[in-house]
Amino acid sequence: MGIPFKKSIRCVGLVGKYQSADVAAALPQLAAFLRSYGVRVLIEEGIAPQVDAHGEELASYETMGSEAEVVVVLGGDGTMLYAARRMAEFGVPLAGINQGRLGFMTDIARKDMLTAVGELLTGHFTAEPRLLLNGEIWRDGERLASSLAFNEVVVNKGDLGRMIEMRVEVNGEFVYLLRADGMIVATPTGSTAYALSADGPILHPGIAGIAMVPLCPHTLSNRPISIGADSHIDITLVSTHIGRVHFDGQERFDLLAGDRVRIARSPQAVTLLHPPGYSYYAMLRSKLHWSEPPKH
Amino acid sequence: MGIPFKKSIRCVGLVGKYQSADVAAALPQLAAFLRSYGVRVLIEEGIAPQVDAHGEELASYETMGSEAEVVVVLGGDGTMLYAARRMAEFGVPLAGINQGRLGFMTDIARKDMLTAVGELLTGHFTAEPRLLLNGEIWRDGERLASSLAFNEVVVNKGDLGRMIEMRVEVNGEFVYLLRADGMIVATPTGSTAYALSADGPILHPGIAGIAMVPLCPHTLSNRPISIGADSHIDITLVSTHIGRVHFDGQERFDLLAGDRVRIARSPQAVTLLHPPGYSYYAMLRSKLHWSEPPKH
Amino acid sequence: MGIPFKKSIRCVGLVGKYQSADVAAALPQLAAFLRSYGVRVLIEEGIAPQVDAHGEELASYETMGSEAEVVVVLGGDGTMLYAARRMAEFGVPLAGINQGRLGFMTDIARKDMLTAVGELLTGHFTAEPRLLLNGEIWRDGERLASSLAFNEVVVNKGDLGRMIEMRVEVNGEFVYLLRADGMIVATPTGSTAYALSADGPILHPGIAGIAMVPLCPHTLSNRPISIGADSHIDITLVSTHIGRVHFDGQERFDLLAGDRVRIARSPQAVTLLHPPGYSYYAMLRSKLHWSEPPKH
Amino acid sequence: MGIPFKKSIRCVGLVGKYQSADVAAALPQLAAFLRSYGVRVLIEEGIAPQVDAHGEELASYETMGSEAEVVVVLGGDGTMLYAARRMAEFGVPLAGINQGRLGFMTDIARKDMLTAVGELLTGHFTAEPRLLLNGEIWRDGERLASSLAFNEVVVNKGDLGRMIEMRVEVNGEFVYLLRADGMIVATPTGSTAYALSADGPILHPGIAGIAMVPLCPHTLSNRPISIGADSHIDITLVSTHIGRVHFDGQERFDLLAGDRVRIARSPQAVTLLHPPGYSYYAMLRSKLHWSEPPKH
Repeated sequence: MGIPFKKSIRCVGLVGKYQSADVAAALPQLAAFLRSYGVRVLIEEGIAPQVDAHGEELASYETMGSEAEVVVVLGGDGTMLYAARRMAEFGVPLAGINQGRLGFMTDIARKDMLTAVGELLTGHFTAEPRLLLNGEIWRDGERLASSLAFNEVVVNKGDLGRMIEMRVEVNGEFVYLLRADGMIVATPTGSTAYALSADGPILHPGIAGIAMVPLCPHTLSNRPISIGADSHIDITLVSTHIGRVHFDGQERFDLLAGDRVRIARSPQAVTLLHPPGYSYYAMLRSKLHWSEPPKH
Repeated sequence: MGIPFKKSIRCVGLVGKYQSADVAAALPQLAAFLRSYGVRVLIEEGIAPQVDAHGEELASYETMGSEAEVVVVLGGDGTMLYAARRMAEFGVPLAGINQGRLGFMTDIARKDMLTAVGELLTGHFTAEPRLLLNGEIWRDGERLASSLAFNEVVVNKGDLGRMIEMRVEVNGEFVYLLRADGMIVATPTGSTAYALSADGPILHPGIAGIAMVPLCPHTLSNRPISIGADSHIDITLVSTHIGRVHFDGQERFDLLAGDRVRIARSPQAVTLLHPPGYSYYAMLRSKLHWSEPPKH
Repeated sequence: MGIPFKKSIRCVGLVGKYQSADVAAALPQLAAFLRSYGVRVLIEEGIAPQVDAHGEELASYETMGSEAEVVVVLGGDGTMLYAARRMAEFGVPLAGINQGRLGFMTDIARKDMLTAVGELLTGHFTAEPRLLLNGEIWRDGERLASSLAFNEVVVNKGDLGRMIEMRVEVNGEFVYLLRADGMIVATPTGSTAYALSADGPILHPGIAGIAMVPLCPHTLSNRPISIGADSHIDITLVSTHIGRVHFDGQERFDLLAGDRVRIARSPQAVTLLHPPGYSYYAMLRSKLHWSEPPKH
Repeated sequence: MGIPFKKSIRCVGLVGKYQSADVAAALPQLAAFLRSYGVRVLIEEGIAPQVDAHGEELASYETMGSEAEVVVVLGGDGTMLYAARRMAEFGVPLAGINQGRLGFMTDIARKDMLTAVGELLTGHFTAEPRLLLNGEIWRDGERLASSLAFNEVVVNKGDLGRMIEMRVEVNGEFVYLLRADGMIVATPTGSTAYALSADGPILHPGIAGIAMVPLCPHTLSNRPISIGADSHIDITLVSTHIGRVHFDGQERFDLLAGDRVRIARSPQAVTLLHPPGYSYYAMLRSKLHWSEPPKH
């Protein structure tokens, strides 16, 4: 899966999970390793107070976006999610080193950090594009806000109600009135995250699709539907319902009755870099406790 | 959905469900209507004993395949399934008139038959390609048999056992050992058929994907996975298990331990023709009892 | 199902859905019908401004509880739910007349109102006891609040988070740490309400059980568990999570980390009265669009 | 869970899984241990050729049924299932020692065998009754056959068809016409076996219920229903469908159209014996990979 990533790497950005002693220890070590190969290292400035950043070059996400050829993320899937959203507009590819357990997106084990980054520098990684969603909130013909989602956009009930009613349209075509706790619109990347606990389908990242997964639908025959990635989805809160829209669980906006959320593939994409031997299915097996092949 | 179907139509093949008085009555009526437009009509020969075929031109599927620009199917989804598989190698598009209730694939109501066929002749239909699967059975390095599936290929337990063990690979990569009643590999068309009762995902026909849906998997975290349509899937019966492979529920072969079923997109496709106003989502709403838009 | 309800009826309480013209028209009609049989009628006082209550005797729930042998509810399942919770402490049985579509609990059609109430007076109804849950909120060893649930107690995430972590115990025995959007604890009555959209099991009212149904559980092998009705369940919010507890979607309390919700069968029960010919399965078929028996 | 099992034990039957070297080695060891406590030991005669039975007293299931106070099963859940069905008519309680991984019913670890059996002899086990189902096959007013099920009775499609149509009744009341691959009727014990892979509900053994779980139902709103354990269920194959009925996956009968399978609680029950510290929920956690409580 993926195509060889052979780009010459002169500058690497490092992003680390905050409040983690392990990450705080690993960052300078990784920085030194990279410099020993003549690579310039930018450390995301927000983590500076937590690491021994003496002699390190600190940088904003924007600077990393314009200077680095690669960003390496140390942490878990949450850290990767945040970094991927921040880097999306710059098109810089990301590689993820998991702090503890293997993640869906942070697929380099902590113990293999230096070996793997060496392989990255010598052109042995592969690059895999992942689609991003863009969500816009419309009220009375005006666009109030918009944001990106790497995993999913969720429209759900607000504080008070127990069920909201949504008019769902795809490419301008009416799909249904959905009475439910909410609706998850997920990328293939997000199909193994929140959408999966709501019984959504797993979509391989190589599929150009978007999954629409209802949350506790009132009509029992409502099922998740996956549609082509070039579709746009409109979700409109009907009658007196209020709700909320969430982007990757990291940003949210309150919705009023009549508000419409338009979701479509973003022109931007995220590129994930994988080490040699990476296997999507091996990652699924590990994360979902599926069977391994029998030993010989 | 779909692109305008503007082909000039000089010859139409008619396929009807057997053992149906309603179809037997409708066929000659439709044939006469078509001839009144100067269109040559071929009636699938197998139904001849059941209709008043006096003066009609009977033909095999092969003849229809080489002579007709369009085949019109009268019946239900089962009749359409059979006809689509038979016509696949000829690339002749099909339109479906349902006999009773609206079908997933027979989307012209019986009462609209003549109006709709008039629209077909005057270029108001749209054409929608649907992918087909090809399944091959391999034993000891030899290909024993192969067949097409428009809905799904199912590998399941044979007569005796209650669970079979299958090694599943995608593009040569190991996915998992599946202990289950079986595995459904479905096209987007088939995603609303048998696979849906096994809790598979609905895939819009515009998505280039294939759904792998386990039947009663022993591991509770096993979930349906959808993969890109250009993947090939290998399902191998392991250890002492025997099983069976089914194509659209219309053809089947017995499998021995060690047999491998390879499933991939067929180079052939089926083209479905839809009348003006056709909506995939309206069809889903109707078939699955989803909500209609509120009346104004 | 149920046992004959032969009690002599001298006083009936009437409860109607608010803001409904149909109910406002039906109430006086039903009151007059009852009086024509010499039955005293108490109309729930809250609805008085909306009906022509001239000459009617108005009463609080408490008065109805001490004076009436039966309460008749006109409205939908929501109205019945509210009335059942209010009447629980008095043990007065309830019969439900649905305003529009047949309800799970309001099983007398509006058009059959007078006939059915006639049958009620003449002893042709059956009585069916339904279990109620009692939920208590405990903080730092103190009981903060408690309430009843006829359908379900839900512990879920509050405003902010996307997932909460709960320690679940049954009869003091540890069950699991649940990371999920929440947990529904439902009665058999509630098993066809909210719990069903969360893929919970249907429990026939004749089963002495309680269903625990996780909402979007993070662990894919988490499944609903039904336990004996005499069990008590403790759900404790762990670590830094805050949440909320809901009783029948009609009352709610905010929860802090460490709060414990104890749920057990209430010593009180609700008695539902059913007209002759009532069938639980017919109600399920109707509400869930299941097949009817073939016509002869 | 369960009540103390204080019966004085003078004779123990031993049942072992066939074709297992580990079991063959453990049996004589366990027999010697029991004899050292003055307990008479009967070894199930079918396993004799595989063990060093020199000096052992061999016995049929019937003899064990009349002589032994307890039967100890060495193997997996399949061995326990078989033994439980065979011992049902004699009412002898069973304890299970798992050979490899912990089982749902064989809850004594192999390494704890001698300690546990010591505890059994000294009255530290608990006894837990489990309900059994009885299934009868009726054709043209005649009872053709009947059998017991400890886990489940399954009515499913036979060799040929892909879906069967069944008329389902409970206590003589029509439930629905089910078009499906089949129907599982499970005990609480069986609710964690085959029924669970078909998305059935987990029923705690303390609940007096029976779960009806459809297999791949054609109607998407069909859901598992649990009913009181004193109900009887009739499943009739309608129209031209043929099928098959399975008892615990160990016995089966072919069904013709019109055949009726009547399922009800058996007057017999199985008593399982558990070692001190046994926990149903701990067993679920272990088998279903649920979370353990956090370590302190």
